[in-house]
Amino acid sequence: MKIAVVGSGALGLYYGALLQRGGEDIHFLLRRDYDAVSKNGLKIFSINGDFELPTVQGYRRSEDIGPVDLVLVGLKTFANDVLRELVSPLIGKGTNILTLQNGLGNEETLAELFGGERIIGGVAFLCSNRGEPGEVHHLGAGRIIIGEYVCGDQDRLKMLASVFNLCGIDCRITDDIKKARWEKLVWNIPFNGLCALLLQTVDRLLAVSHTRSLIRQIMLEVIRAANTQKLSTPIAEKYAEDMLLFTDNMGVYKPSMLIDREEGRQMETTAIFRKPLESGQNLGVAMHRVEMLATLLEQVGP
Amino acid sequence: MKIAVVGSGALGLYYGALLQRGGEDIHFLLRRDYDAVSKNGLKIFSINGDFELPTVQGYRRSEDIGPVDLVLVGLKTFANDVLRELVSPLIGKGTNILTLQNGLGNEETLAELFGGERIIGGVAFLCSNRGEPGEVHHLGAGRIIIGEYVCGDQDRLKMLASVFNLCGIDCRITDDIKKARWEKLVWNIPFNGLCALLLQTVDRLLAVSHTRSLIRQIMLEVIRAANTQKLSTPIAEKYAEDMLLFTDNMGVYKPSMLIDREEGRQMETTAIFRKPLESGQNLGVAMHRVEMLATLLEQVGP
Repeated sequence: MKIAVVGSGALGLYYGALLQRGGEDIHFLLRRDYDAVSKNGLKIFSINGDFELPTVQGYRRSEDIGPVDLVLVGLKTFANDVLRELVSPLIGKGTNILTLQNGLGNEETLAELFGGERIIGGVAFLCSNRGEPGEVHHLGAGRIIIGEYVCGDQDRLKMLASVFNLCGIDCRITDDIKKARWEKLVWNIPFNGLCALLLQTVDRLLAVSHTRSLIRQIMLEVIRAANTQKLSTPIAEKYAEDMLLFTDNMGVYKPSMLIDREEGRQMETTAIFRKPLESGQNLGVAMHRVEMLATLLEQVGP
Repeated sequence: MKIAVVGSGALGLYYGALLQRGGEDIHFLLRRDYDAVSKNGLKIFSINGDFELPTVQGYRRSEDIGPVDLVLVGLKTFANDVLRELVSPLIGKGTNILTLQNGLGNEETLAELFGGERIIGGVAFLCSNRGEPGEVHHLGAGRIIIGEYVCGDQDRLKMLASVFNLCGIDCRITDDIKKARWEKLVWNIPFNGLCALLLQTVDRLLAVSHTRSLIRQIMLEVIRAANTQKLSTPIAEKYAEDMLLFTDNMGVYKPSMLIDREEGRQMETTAIFRKPLESGQNLGVAMHRVEMLATLLEQVGP
């Protein structure tokens, strides 16, 4: 399968590398890592075993890749305004677009640009960070959940999941991608938000009982808002406790938004905070703590 | 009147200097500023006119001051555990103790140590910062409101207010010092808390509409909690708007808690946040945003 990776950060490079190792025809659109990857390929340092790809097809412009079977979008959501420019040259007759981006609103943005029937929603539960150019550190997890955005038919999802699974990526199909997105928000909103605001890793937050309790309260606000969104089944309140225990095992982990702030980049506050707040407010659900956290992040952001 | 100033920071030095200039017999208990003040006295740079006191009675130990008529307590509340040691040597038969400290619980602490009948509660609305040792910058306001803690009689309040007013300190009497404390908290909680958390001055917070709105919401939480505390008359919701407009005029102001954090000191989170939260909770009032702010401050504190 000819696949273009748009947004070759810690997520795009990691999944792209696994797909290439598994025999797929992968084309990376690169910016920061172009020189390093063109010269030396990719190095993945993974809890599942390190591996190298000495030769990688890297590009500076999508035009040089041309139409593909699948566009894998891993772009930071604050860069969504360049999606038209980056993705248009990759679109052919049967091209599908899978977005693994954070937060809400990404399928909608892509659907407006390229038509809803091409769009597949995806949620990645992945702990990875970029290292030196051409290097990715995979620290934990990695499951992808994919679901249709407008189409009812699951055949292409099954085909895609089978390709991913053959390449060693745990990929599952859901008939409620919206629920998967909200489930990820239950983790993303407190941990990305608080770590970025306080410039601390997840373990430091979890070690203080008041802060742990604040995280739980934020998660419960998100769960309550999620459960007004016409999900197939509600998210149980117990999911908050599960996520706390899951995160206890992550150790000294830096969520992506903390790294974005440390490196002077924008933070994904619109997709991860403002869009969910809007979705909640539209259905009459207030999220006081989530809103306060969004406001504080915007106040310290670049 | 023989007055000892305990806690000679920006507040203690400022009021002590005004009282000494007005002819009172002032004895400063000093730590950081001892050498500078003993050698060169005090310099006050004030919006009401600068002045100098070339000779000042400074001490390292309260024992060297001995019993006084009035102890003026300006100590940071996180140092309240040394009050017994610092204040005991100053107590004589008729000694009164006026606390101008922030937050809640200070009268109670002093009353336990020295008896409630000696205690006068005070709330200072003062913008001042310490400069170099021996220097204080008075940036705005300065009114003091005093009230009895357990005694019903207002005679000593009238006497004290008259001494203060003769020295150029705007000092008023209230029969509800608890209300005055909560009114100050309406300002202190959002501005001290958010400025210290975000390392920003008040003007930057007020300039962003989401943040201004968060400040208002925090103020309203405090007002609602205050109005369950059996005050003589309730605090109107409009007080929040008044405080916002008042703060607009303060310009690039750093609240004391921001300075405390910048200088690596503890922050007064117990007196300014946890005690009010406890008072609210005891009467069934939740303050979600105030509690979140307290937790965040504790998480970044030393």
